[in-house]
Formats: sequence, structure tokens, C-alpha cells
Amino acid sequence: MNIPTYTAQQIAERFGLQLHGDGDTEIHGVATLAHAGPGQLSFLANPRYRAQLADSRASVVVMRADDVEGAPGTALVAKDPYTAFAKISALFEVAPVREPGIHPLAVIDPTAHVAANAHVGPFVSIGARSVVGEGCVIGTGSIIGEDCVVGDGCTLIARVTLVTRVRLGKRVQIHPGAVIGADGFGLAMDAGHWIKVPQLGGVVIGDDCEIGANTCIDRGALEDTVLEEDVRVDNLVQIAHNCHIGAHSAIAGCTGIAGSAKIGRYCLLGGHVGVVGHLEICDKVVITGKSVVRNSIHEPGEYSSGTPLTDTRTWRKNAARFKQLDALARRVAAVSKENE
Amino acid sequence: MNIPTYTAQQIAERFGLQLHGDGDTEIHGVATLAHAGPGQLSFLANPRYRAQLADSRASVVVMRADDVEGAPGTALVAKDPYTAFAKISALFEVAPVREPGIHPLAVIDPTAHVAANAHVGPFVSIGARSVVGEGCVIGTGSIIGEDCVVGDGCTLIARVTLVTRVRLGKRVQIHPGAVIGADGFGLAMDAGHWIKVPQLGGVVIGDDCEIGANTCIDRGALEDTVLEEDVRVDNLVQIAHNCHIGAHSAIAGCTGIAGSAKIGRYCLLGGHVGVVGHLEICDKVVITGKSVVRNSIHEPGEYSSGTPLTDTRTWRKNAARFKQLDALARRVAAVSKENE
Amino acid sequence: MNIPTYTAQQIAERFGLQLHGDGDTEIHGVATLAHAGPGQLSFLANPRYRAQLADSRASVVVMRADDVEGAPGTALVAKDPYTAFAKISALFEVAPVREPGIHPLAVIDPTAHVAANAHVGPFVSIGARSVVGEGCVIGTGSIIGEDCVVGDGCTLIARVTLVTRVRLGKRVQIHPGAVIGADGFGLAMDAGHWIKVPQLGGVVIGDDCEIGANTCIDRGALEDTVLEEDVRVDNLVQIAHNCHIGAHSAIAGCTGIAGSAKIGRYCLLGGHVGVVGHLEICDKVVITGKSVVRNSIHEPGEYSSGTPLTDTRTWRKNAARFKQLDALARRVAAVSKENE
Repeated sequence: MNIPTYTAQQIAERFGLQLHGDGDTEIHGVATLAHAGPGQLSFLANPRYRAQLADSRASVVVMRADDVEGAPGTALVAKDPYTAFAKISALFEVAPVREPGIHPLAVIDPTAHVAANAHVGPFVSIGARSVVGEGCVIGTGSIIGEDCVVGDGCTLIARVTLVTRVRLGKRVQIHPGAVIGADGFGLAMDAGHWIKVPQLGGVVIGDDCEIGANTCIDRGALEDTVLEEDVRVDNLVQIAHNCHIGAHSAIAGCTGIAGSAKIGRYCLLGGHVGVVGHLEICDKVVITGKSVVRNSIHEPGEYSSGTPLTDTRTWRKNAARFKQLDALARRVAAVSKENE
Repeated sequence: MNIPTYTAQQIAERFGLQLHGDGDTEIHGVATLAHAGPGQLSFLANPRYRAQLADSRASVVVMRADDVEGAPGTALVAKDPYTAFAKISALFEVAPVREPGIHPLAVIDPTAHVAANAHVGPFVSIGARSVVGEGCVIGTGSIIGEDCVVGDGCTLIARVTLVTRVRLGKRVQIHPGAVIGADGFGLAMDAGHWIKVPQLGGVVIGDDCEIGANTCIDRGALEDTVLEEDVRVDNLVQIAHNCHIGAHSAIAGCTGIAGSAKIGRYCLLGGHVGVVGHLEICDKVVITGKSVVRNSIHEPGEYSSGTPLTDTRTWRKNAARFKQLDALARRVAAVSKENE
Repeated sequence: MNIPTYTAQQIAERFGLQLHGDGDTEIHGVATLAHAGPGQLSFLANPRYRAQLADSRASVVVMRADDVEGAPGTALVAKDPYTAFAKISALFEVAPVREPGIHPLAVIDPTAHVAANAHVGPFVSIGARSVVGEGCVIGTGSIIGEDCVVGDGCTLIARVTLVTRVRLGKRVQIHPGAVIGADGFGLAMDAGHWIKVPQLGGVVIGDDCEIGANTCIDRGALEDTVLEEDVRVDNLVQIAHNCHIGAHSAIAGCTGIAGSAKIGRYCLLGGHVGVVGHLEICDKVVITGKSVVRNSIHEPGEYSSGTPLTDTRTWRKNAARFKQLDALARRVAAVSKENE
């Protein structure tokens, strides 16, 4: 592996940043302000870390214009230092090489079509009538069932399962263990015994989506489960059948979204959030971690539920009172009235 | 793939439904009221959707007797339209064909026994002394460890792991990524270091159970973890060692049940529910999504916990007061007394 | 399989326990007090189960000195009977044999190094520059990416994924479906579209850690995600990028820990716990199941959050009042003042 090297000047030009200091400074890696050493580039985005700037041994730091005054060493000025840093840091990412071609220990159905320049790793199986587009990487142990479409430039890192009728847009990235297109959880009771409601729909995932490790997105019962473009989903998330997630929304780990929920564009769901089924969340809604959404939300903004953490003894006393809250409120109303 | 076609008359006879309208109407698929087109059958179960009936382009609609009056087109009358629809819709499900036989890229221990008419896909391994019954489908990449029994007619969709000592009844269906029979989480502290408590039990899963994608059911420490017949488990559910789940219960996604909990028959656990270990829930209990069960439940009925979602600013003010709830209740009691 | 047999005397000597009764009693298995039969050893740790002692058919019971008086049959006295039982019960665990050697259906990169006495199962792939130590078991279907180190004596049960830059200490045990070293969930917004923040760090897992089924531990953005030695993680847990978990901590199922959280030594996190990112929890903190940690914790002790479960009708009335809690507290303060 050759370590890539760039000068501060080259980076400034490439990303349209303003340079303060020595443009010849060579950079061969990125690090946090606290841990960067010579030859490394860092960033200052959160004002909380400004104090670290003076002591940082980073050769170059990306920062806002306001922070340049008094900054030691070479600075690159960006309106959004974190975003600029994300782009710069991609220069130093060494992605593993995945050569085009189908591994001899892959099993491809004769009716499937795999682009000649796609990579198909060992222990992959691709089912009937499925299509893998140009430049895709289908990593080791991935399983693509029947009637799937993997758009150009997609990466299934490894051990991804697309069960059936899953259609990925372009440049979708899916992490190991994710299961897309399994049966939705549809049940009907018949004479004291469950019967399964057939799940005849599929899953449609838009361009540039990313799906985390061990996340599940079920296929729809009658219509499709849909993620619009650029939806970002973390690990261990459950997206049930017939959900619809708007473009550019991001969903953190362990969140569960029940069936037929409709989530808007540019929404942010924190970790461990629960969303009840058959409701609607409008665009630009933020739900903080561990909250539960039991009703539709029609106004953009940030929403929360839950109670604060305390020592268990205190918690027990207060939690017991929660059961009396309505009675308490009634008594307060009565006392207030008496006092009038 | 041939598209199956049935007349309204054929469907009525097959499922014992009453026909209103043209029995010769041909049906070649199913859809929601809103999206059905000619040649499709739909259903009306939830009165909320009754308004859609007039505009629906569905050729046939399954509904209750009350709704037939004034319904356009052909109707099939059912006491429970959703259950009837589930059965009808199975006619139009095109299941992928899994031919009997063992794929050359499967690894079967010489002491294992696989029924001649079972399907064993590529990249499957079956361990010592394990048995796969008649007509089973062991999908691609599934791993069956030592001493497992897979009953007749089971389907492991793909990439399912039965670790060891897992016994499945008949017609059990398991979705990709599920891990059944991993070590329970048993630890004992010994001189400041954890030691592992051996997990010597197994997992017993009854007939007609269904286990969702990436769900985990651990094997017991000394006895078995048990799911009785017809238990339905959604995705990303954790069922810890020595749990016992009664017949016909259903558990929604992201729910976690701690060790040795005993859950009754016909229980419904919503999504993201937490159940503390070593407690008992009686038959016919419903726990709404995101609730936590910290004590045994002895009465059937529906139970909930948690607080409502509000905008974060309002939530912060109210949540802070939760810490003072006991003090508040005491003050109210004191004031009430003074006012007497 | 031969069933191992030990006398009470042999067990007493091996684990330094005091023997009461017949040292020649033969033991060929372990069971609970309630279910043990002749020839089986059981234990009494929780005083709740003392009543079962009289009726137990166990041939030998491990117990505290206090319980020996009046105990029928043979007793082994231990200060901590559960820990002693855990050790004894390991004598009766029949671990499957995993012969050294690389299965012909494994794919090993020529630059990887696998110890000669390691077991590598079928459908395993090991990537460039990765190293597998002495006596390791790399179970069926496991995937080890580039630049990983698996220390001596590690066991990857089956279908484990180490994505890239994962370094395991010695004797680490990982259960099926776990994904270690996937990309952290790092995003930056750029002109209305997400861009991915490269995840250049790795994951470091200390000696004697255990990682549960379908658990995810992401690799760090710039530095490593770290688990110190002897950390025990249950199933379906999410540990986000750059977390640091102190030695001897244990984390129960379905818990999620957001990015850059730092958790101390000897902490216990219950099931379904949520920990917000970028905070710190000191040593010896216990968080009860389903609680959420939104702020740093600086004092050892047990902490909780949440509300108690009630029937849904009662819950609804009380939960509605939660929205008025601040107003209620203000009114109580006002009334108290009026009454002064």
C-alpha cells in the first residue's frame, strides 16, 4: 500500500478552500486535533474543541474563518469544516481492490445477468432473472435471490442478503448481515391459529442510499417498501413492510419503524427510536434517541419522549408516582379551586 | 412464470364465501383498494377505508355483509375479510422453485441425515448427527450445527444458523440471518474476571412457528429454550436462554425478552418491547410497542408504559419535573390536608 | 460421545470445595434443583430456591455453608455456589471437535497467514495481510477482511464477519452473525446531499472478550473503537464508532451505544439500554434494562429511567398528564405559597 501524499496547496485547490500559511506542507494522513502528528491534517468544527487547537501537532487544520486568527501552523478555511474534512479524508482512504470477474466458487443462475466489469466474490449466489449492474461489488457470501436488480456502482460489502424483488438504485452501499426483502410480518388469525399473509411486494431503494450492518428492510405486502434517494440507515435498524422513507433522511442504530409508516424528507431519527405503524411524519423532523412516535407529526422540528435517568432508588419513588399522576392533577385542580 | 387466473366463482367456492355480482369475473392478482386495477381482487376490512370502495377499480372486493349494499362491482362476503384475503392472496404468490437434492457446494457431515426430497442449497453445512426432514428447504448459506433436528416441511430461507441442539417442529419457517441456539449470556464473576457459564441446553421450536430475519434465540443453560407451536416472531428480536413462549403468541420487531421469562399463549408483544428476566406473563396479554415489563402479569389485557412525545423544549421542562414527582405528590398531600 | 463421570470427591478436590456426605457419589451431569435426577449435580445460590432443596433428587448440590445444615444428600460447600457451579458444569460440556486445518472450500488470500494448528471451516474467506493465531477456530462461513489480526485461541463460532482492521486479543469468542469493523455511521451534509465520512480507524478487542450473535461493533472514524479485556457483549448490541468500553464490563442484549461514548470498567448495562454519544460513564455503574443515559455519570451506583407498566387505559390518563407536569408543579408551588 502506497501512502498518498498531498500538499496543503493541492488540497486547497481541489476543494476550493482558502489557504493560510505554508502551501508546501505535505500531508499523508488525517487525525483528530488531539492525536494528529506532523504530516497529518485535522479539523476544528465544534467550538468545544477550540482549546485543543493551540496544542495540536497537526500540520494543517481545516477551520472556519473566525478561528484562523491566532491559529498556529497552516490553516484551510471552509464554511463547513466537517464536510470539507470528510471530503479531504476520502483522499486517504485505502479501499480494498475488488477485481472484476466472477469467483469460481460463486453460483449464478443461468437467467441472471451480471455486468462484465462487476466483481462477484466467493460463496455468492445470484438467483433467477436478477441483474447486477456495471461496476458493482457483490462481496463474499452475499445472496441475491430471484428478480432483483442491483443498479450500477452498488457495493454489497459482504454477506448481504437480498431476498427477492429488491431493486437497488445506483451507488447503493450495503453492509454485512443486512437482510433486504424478507417477508413482512403479516399475520391473520383464523380459528385460533395464525395464517401468513403473503408478502407479494418488493423493496425499492433509491440512488446513494446506505444500509447498515444487520439491518432489516422487509418487502411490502401488496405494494413496495420504498426508500427514496440518499437515505442513510445505520446498523440493526428494522424497517417493516410498506414503509416509505423520504429522500436524505438518516436513521440511527437500533431504530424500529413499524409497517406502513411514512417518513418525510430530511428527517433524522436518533438511535433506538420506535415509530408506530400507519402514521406519517412530515419533512425535516428530528426525533431524539430512544423516543417513541405514536402519532403522526405535521410540523417540522425536534421531538422527544421518555424520562430522565436518576439513581434507581430515586427513580423508583418517582416512577411509582407516575401511576398516580392523573389523580394528582385532579387533586391539584380541586385544591386550586378551593383556594380561589 | 405463468400468471394464475381464477374466476370470482372459483374463489367463492374454494374459500366458502358468498358471491354478489358476476361470478365469471377473472382475477389474476391482488392489490389494495386504492391501487387495484381491472382483473385484481382487493379487500375492505377496516371501516376507515370504506370511502375508497366507490372509487376502487378492483374487479372483485372481499368485504363484510354490511358493506355489500351499494358496493360497485363484484363482492365476496366474508366474516373476516382480512383473513379471507390472506388465503386468497396465497393463490397469487409465486414461490421460487427449490428442487430436491443436495447442491455440490454443500458440506454434509457423514453422520447427518437429509431426507431425499429435501432441498439443500449451495454453501450450506450440516453438522454431525443432525437430521433434515421430508420436503425441507435448507436455503443458500445456511449452517446447521451438531445434533439438530429440522422437522418435515421446514424452510430455512437462506443464511440461517442453527448452532447446536436446536429442534424444529414441522413447517417452521426461518428468515435470513436468524441465529438459533447460540450460547445464552451466562456469566459468573470469579476473582474480578468473568467466567462463562456453560450453556448445556438446547432450543425447541414447535410446529408452524415463524422466526424473522436477524432474530436470535439462545439455547438454554441447563434446560431448553422453548417456543410452543404457532409462535410468530418478527425481525431483530432477542429471546434469551430458557425463555418459554406459549403457543400462538406473536412478537414484533426489535423486542427483547430476557432470560427465563415465561410468556403465555395468545400474547401479542409490540415492537421494541422489553421483558425483564425470570418473570411470568399470563395468556392473552397485549403489550404495546416500546413498553417495558418489569413485573409478572397475572391478568389478561393490554398494558403500556412510557411518556408521550412532545417537542423537545416542552419535553425537557416536563421531564425535569419527573425527578421531583415524589416530592410534588407529598406537597400536594400536605396542602390538601391543610385545606381540610 | 462418551459421557464424562466424576465423583463428588474428585470435584471437591478439583475446585477446592468442602465435601459433606458421600465422596463416592458419581456425577455424570448437571441440572437445576427442580429437574435434577440421580447422578446429577445441582446448585443453590439464590435463597428463593432453598425450599426446593428438600425435594430435589440431585445426587450432589453445591451450596453455601449456611445451607448445609439439614440438606439431604451430598453437599459441596462454596463461598459463591453459582461460580463454583459454572466451573463444575464446564466438565460436562461436550464441545464439538474442530480439527486443525483449512477446509478445501475456504478461500485464503496468499498474503494472509493462518497458524498450522488453526481450524478454518468451509465457506470461510480470509483477506489480504490478515493473521489467524495458534489454535483458533474460524467457523463455517466466517469472513475475515483485510488487515485483521485474530489472536491465539480465538473462536469465531460460525458466520462471523470481521470487515477490516479488526484486531482481536487472545481467547476472544464471537457468535454467529456478529459484524465487527463495519463502517461507522459518519455523515456530513453537503448542499442538501449526504456525503460519507471515511472510517479510517479499526476495532481493537481485548483478551477474553465475548461478542454475541448479530451484534455490531463499528470501526472508528479516525481512531479505533476499543473494548478492553474481558468485556462481555450479548446479542443484537450496537456499539458505534470510537466507543471505548472498559475491562470486565458486561452489556446485555439489544443495547445501543452511540459514537464516542466511553464506558468504564466493571459496568453492567441491562438489556435495551440506550447510551447517547460523546459521554462518559465511570467505573462500576449499573444501568437497569430499557433505561437511557443522556448525560455523563460520575458516581458508581445503579441508575434507571422510564415509567412503570400499567393497563393501557390507566397509562393513557397518566401519560397525558405528563405533558402538563411542569404546569402542575408550578401550580402546586403557587398554591403552597398561597397557603403559607
